[in-house]
Amino acid sequence: MMSVPKIVILGAGYGGLMTAKGLAKELKSNEAEITLVNQNSYHYVTTELHKPAAGTSHHDHARLSIPSVINTKRINFIQDRVTAIKLEEKEVQLESNEPLKYDYLVVGLGSAPETFGIKGLMENAFFIRNIASVRAIREHMEYMFARYALEKKEELITIVVGGAGFTGIEYVGELVDRMPELCREYDIPLEKVRIVNVEAAPTVLPGFDKELVEYAVKYLESKGVEFLISTPIEECTEEGVILKGGQEIKAATVVWTGGVRGNKLVEESGIETMRGRVKVDENLRAPGYDNVFIIGDSSLVFNEDERPYPPTAQISTQQGQYLGKNLAVKLRGGEMKPFKYMPKGTVASLGRKEAIGVVGNKKLMGGSAAFMKKLIDLRWFYLLGGLSLVLRKGKL
Amino acid sequence: MMSVPKIVILGAGYGGLMTAKGLAKELKSNEAEITLVNQNSYHYVTTELHKPAAGTSHHDHARLSIPSVINTKRINFIQDRVTAIKLEEKEVQLESNEPLKYDYLVVGLGSAPETFGIKGLMENAFFIRNIASVRAIREHMEYMFARYALEKKEELITIVVGGAGFTGIEYVGELVDRMPELCREYDIPLEKVRIVNVEAAPTVLPGFDKELVEYAVKYLESKGVEFLISTPIEECTEEGVILKGGQEIKAATVVWTGGVRGNKLVEESGIETMRGRVKVDENLRAPGYDNVFIIGDSSLVFNEDERPYPPTAQISTQQGQYLGKNLAVKLRGGEMKPFKYMPKGTVASLGRKEAIGVVGNKKLMGGSAAFMKKLIDLRWFYLLGGLSLVLRKGKL
Repeated sequence: MMSVPKIVILGAGYGGLMTAKGLAKELKSNEAEITLVNQNSYHYVTTELHKPAAGTSHHDHARLSIPSVINTKRINFIQDRVTAIKLEEKEVQLESNEPLKYDYLVVGLGSAPETFGIKGLMENAFFIRNIASVRAIREHMEYMFARYALEKKEELITIVVGGAGFTGIEYVGELVDRMPELCREYDIPLEKVRIVNVEAAPTVLPGFDKELVEYAVKYLESKGVEFLISTPIEECTEEGVILKGGQEIKAATVVWTGGVRGNKLVEESGIETMRGRVKVDENLRAPGYDNVFIIGDSSLVFNEDERPYPPTAQISTQQGQYLGKNLAVKLRGGEMKPFKYMPKGTVASLGRKEAIGVVGNKKLMGGSAAFMKKLIDLRWFYLLGGLSLVLRKGKL
Repeated sequence: MMSVPKIVILGAGYGGLMTAKGLAKELKSNEAEITLVNQNSYHYVTTELHKPAAGTSHHDHARLSIPSVINTKRINFIQDRVTAIKLEEKEVQLESNEPLKYDYLVVGLGSAPETFGIKGLMENAFFIRNIASVRAIREHMEYMFARYALEKKEELITIVVGGAGFTGIEYVGELVDRMPELCREYDIPLEKVRIVNVEAAPTVLPGFDKELVEYAVKYLESKGVEFLISTPIEECTEEGVILKGGQEIKAATVVWTGGVRGNKLVEESGIETMRGRVKVDENLRAPGYDNVFIIGDSSLVFNEDERPYPPTAQISTQQGQYLGKNLAVKLRGGEMKPFKYMPKGTVASLGRKEAIGVVGNKKLMGGSAAFMKKLIDLRWFYLLGGLSLVLRKGKL
């Protein structure tokens, strides 16, 4: 076992898990030693986090024990936090364990919030980021609603969502679903609650089909959501947000969904990055390193028009599937094929029963889109754990 | 209807509800006009509030719609907040309605927290007081626990309970029951949580049988509760509490159960009070007012040794039952009998399955005491709404 190549995979997100599972399937134990490192004992389903953040589903529905979805005989799982990537030493430093030596490194450490320099955002806003952060959002919001009966201050039941991109809109959709229940729980008249979605760009869901955007906005507005587009947030304070021009919205809960950047550890490793993301080569390698692969939210992949694809679960999953196969080929002395992203479509949910999206060339809205969204969610469980996991986790 | 005497009852607690129900049963509509005023549309079961405060039961289990338990044909129910009692004008001022004239007034407005001048307590501590306040305690605690995974600060999962009297001990008992679930929910090792019960008196449950107190302390300590007796709290800050002598306990959640005083409105009416409580005569009348009755937590009733009975649901209920009968007698020109409190015993719960108490001359502890406690709770539902309410609300 001492002489087999060591593959270390950092992060058990979509990309890391797919890479690990793919390699474990392709390679025999005398061909490679596979180690997966993750901060938590569980994988979380990033595309589902807007639900526990609003409280429309429990956060346990959005996580899965890692040992339950990998072959632990083939994959050595270490639960620990990565503190540094030492490229020259071919070594990864961990918080609680000895440094890990690698021959091949796969970095899938995910993203960090991008605040675009907005003052006070990091300190005063919440982020839909991981299980711990969405749990805190839910509990914070509920505590503010609970306080309303005692203090009667409107800002306690005002929620500002910064960013009307994919995550922002999906989160607002869940909030709309949650409010009737929350208002009953805390004896608050529903019409008193304010949900304000603030977006700097001149449109909700930039890049999305116009007809679909209109459908989404109309639906959410009918549920009481206020949209402020072309409205940059200047500052986030303990009291709420200050918009460009000076207008203040007092809000006890501010959730920022306005953007993500790559993981800081990648930047700190010395690899060249743009906002923490690495422009990888056609084999997903970091520039200058034949044995270091960057996947997921910290990687930048460009389309034919030389524009970067936005970071999504879909592209991360495909990168993981690609590496699982092609790194095995490389280990056996073969040639890696170039990675090619195949976008299959995008569906944004607007709560339980509404959604909009494009699948193939087809525009979908309403119930059919919501159904398609559920199929997409279930597909991830299928990839992770087959039909049995779909049946265990899936709620159609 | 214009010439019948007007009876106005302030507060739909144990005493007020029993008075209203008793009068409605005794008197015909041509004998008196009965009006019940309460801030909320519901009655809450004060003796149950420690459970929703800890989150071991939902706050809806501790409240009941007032119209569902009174005869609304006989009792005129007004949902409003009393702002002043004008004794000379024989009038009660309300926040949202016209002032109410009365011929007979029954004041059962409950208590307010007694802070004994401890600095910062009113601003920084929580109080087990009503539905809104216990909901806020539960949500605050859960939010602090949710933050622990993000911030890892021990004070977030430290709870200080000020006062080891009846309410303090019952609340601590519920907290002990809740912690395993709460720790699972927020991925916190149970042994990291601190529950500290601080009491200025030299014993837990002052006045209680020594053997029972020992049983309670031993049980709660076995569950990890720390008791600090003979330890006055000097100050409550945003960070926790400072004990006499200067020691600080950092705690994100401080709940004060150390004492209650009478309602401020009673004091402000000009009636002579001690800590807001009125030393009533043998007919529960305020000194100097033949037509004003004070019941419940704002009244002071003395035992044969000239020591005041502590304010409890039990004495309030008996006062209400007494007034319901005797005020009817008075209205018909009869003589009121003197009120005599008949203590039937006291049982303090220590979570779901443990309790201690004295019923009659019998000491109870463990399961038998817990069973007795449930019977006592059910008795109140029986008095309020008969067997059907017991069956609807009761969980044995």
